[in-house]
Amino acid sequence: MFVLDLIGVFFFAVSGSLLAARRDFDIVGSVMLASLVGLGGGVIRDLVINQGVPNAFQQPLYVVPPLLAALAVYLHVFGVRRLRRTLLLFDAGGLALFCVTGTLTALESGMGAVTSVLLGLTTAVGGGVMRDVVANEIPQVFQPQGIYAIPAVAGAALTSLLWNLDWFNVVTGSAVAALVFTARGLSLRHRWRVPLAGRAGSGGMP
Amino acid sequence: MFVLDLIGVFFFAVSGSLLAARRDFDIVGSVMLASLVGLGGGVIRDLVINQGVPNAFQQPLYVVPPLLAALAVYLHVFGVRRLRRTLLLFDAGGLALFCVTGTLTALESGMGAVTSVLLGLTTAVGGGVMRDVVANEIPQVFQPQGIYAIPAVAGAALTSLLWNLDWFNVVTGSAVAALVFTARGLSLRHRWRVPLAGRAGSGGMP
Amino acid sequence: MFVLDLIGVFFFAVSGSLLAARRDFDIVGSVMLASLVGLGGGVIRDLVINQGVPNAFQQPLYVVPPLLAALAVYLHVFGVRRLRRTLLLFDAGGLALFCVTGTLTALESGMGAVTSVLLGLTTAVGGGVMRDVVANEIPQVFQPQGIYAIPAVAGAALTSLLWNLDWFNVVTGSAVAALVFTARGLSLRHRWRVPLAGRAGSGGMP
Repeated sequence: MFVLDLIGVFFFAVSGSLLAARRDFDIVGSVMLASLVGLGGGVIRDLVINQGVPNAFQQPLYVVPPLLAALAVYLHVFGVRRLRRTLLLFDAGGLALFCVTGTLTALESGMGAVTSVLLGLTTAVGGGVMRDVVANEIPQVFQPQGIYAIPAVAGAALTSLLWNLDWFNVVTGSAVAALVFTARGLSLRHRWRVPLAGRAGSGGMP
Repeated sequence: MFVLDLIGVFFFAVSGSLLAARRDFDIVGSVMLASLVGLGGGVIRDLVINQGVPNAFQQPLYVVPPLLAALAVYLHVFGVRRLRRTLLLFDAGGLALFCVTGTLTALESGMGAVTSVLLGLTTAVGGGVMRDVVANEIPQVFQPQGIYAIPAVAGAALTSLLWNLDWFNVVTGSAVAALVFTARGLSLRHRWRVPLAGRAGSGGMP
Repeated sequence: MFVLDLIGVFFFAVSGSLLAARRDFDIVGSVMLASLVGLGGGVIRDLVINQGVPNAFQQPLYVVPPLLAALAVYLHVFGVRRLRRTLLLFDAGGLALFCVTGTLTALESGMGAVTSVLLGLTTAVGGGVMRDVVANEIPQVFQPQGIYAIPAVAGAALTSLLWNLDWFNVVTGSAVAALVFTARGLSLRHRWRVPLAGRAGSGGMP
């Protein structure tokens, strides 16, 4: 599970470094943004669980994925074209892994089935919200292109269900993450939409 | 007190969903923004108090107000015209209730009279700041239209005073909240202003 | 050390009040922004350390620097011209002091040498990020003008080294802060740059 968590950190970190590149931040800003998005959600999760110092500040290994991500983006490992699309894919990978590992951490700390789902969702979307807010963009969870929170909450709920049935293991956990990733990816490709917040589209009204 | 807290969550949640409608977020984003503003201040408060898992992640009932708020806004229960004014009213309601319940929670956790006022103020303005920041607006507490922090800090101070005099109960607490709401509402209607941060209006200077 | 911490709070608070003046916030917003930037980083630090209520909510004296800062800016103590430059200087002072006191607090709470450096860096940059985010600016740590995180992380690492060698005291601590401040100031004056996040400058690509 620790490895899955680190991979999730790396995915989110790449999304942060790609956004840093798009915004012409320098490489130090790239490391900082990668760390914020990669570690931010987990720190919130650990603060809520309230069992000692958050993992990211206990285990120095957590700084490796952001450093690697910033280096990879600097070297154009993921190409320079279609940065935005690549960013969305890595973000989806982080979302998929964190809704599983976040929910699991909550369950293992003794939280209930429903509240663990909420904390898993918070973990999954929290880092990305911070990334977009500091880069002055509307966070993806609020952008009506594709679906974002729905696959995350579904993945968290599945994780909670599997865990309570004692069916949760690395294989089923990875399958849930793969499902979440696929749903998010399909929703972007086929531009799935859900209804707007106000029925008749009241946007722009005073 | 738990009921008053839930009502405060609902007021703030409506303000979040109304902002989501104005910004053409979808209904899932509406639920997320309603949750952020409704629960964010209380989570900060509980993290600071540091007595176990924050309420919003312990008591699943806390997700009901954001869901109701998003539904009500979707169905145009509050009308589609003058969204901004309705938003400000609901925000004032949340502010009024949270400066009372936030201060009370702090006092009951054993914090001092002054620091409880600070935490009550933080609880009252915290959720709204997060709502406006993620929607890319200048938070209301920083907008020089009407007064915002002053009624909140006055309500928190009154709550702290009443509690220390052993006069605090549901009736006096509700009266304080009503006072705060009235002061905030009057200040908006009559455009009360306080002096700018720099005496001579240094804004826009390099 | 408590005094150094209060001076750091004051430096950051002045930067917040100056930004409030530039943005034409009112004087209450000035106090709020000064408090956010002055106390925000330390509150994050104390939440991570997880040893009781954060200092800023335990020791009422912490509200004095933000009040003084807002008053000083209101009275134009620092002049009205070149607000931005003055803001950057005070911000550098806060950064320099907080990377030392933040790392020290982490070390004294029992955290390891590396993770204490990370928490010191987080403390030093956290308040400034929140200040810039709520005022709708790209945080300075992400702006490629001068270097920001590098002197902070170097100062945190030096603090950690000195502490582990038992050479840390008020004199050496102040020397480290002076070094960080000097490095940040020189980097602004001479426009030091580090490479961009993407090698060939991929900014603005789709």
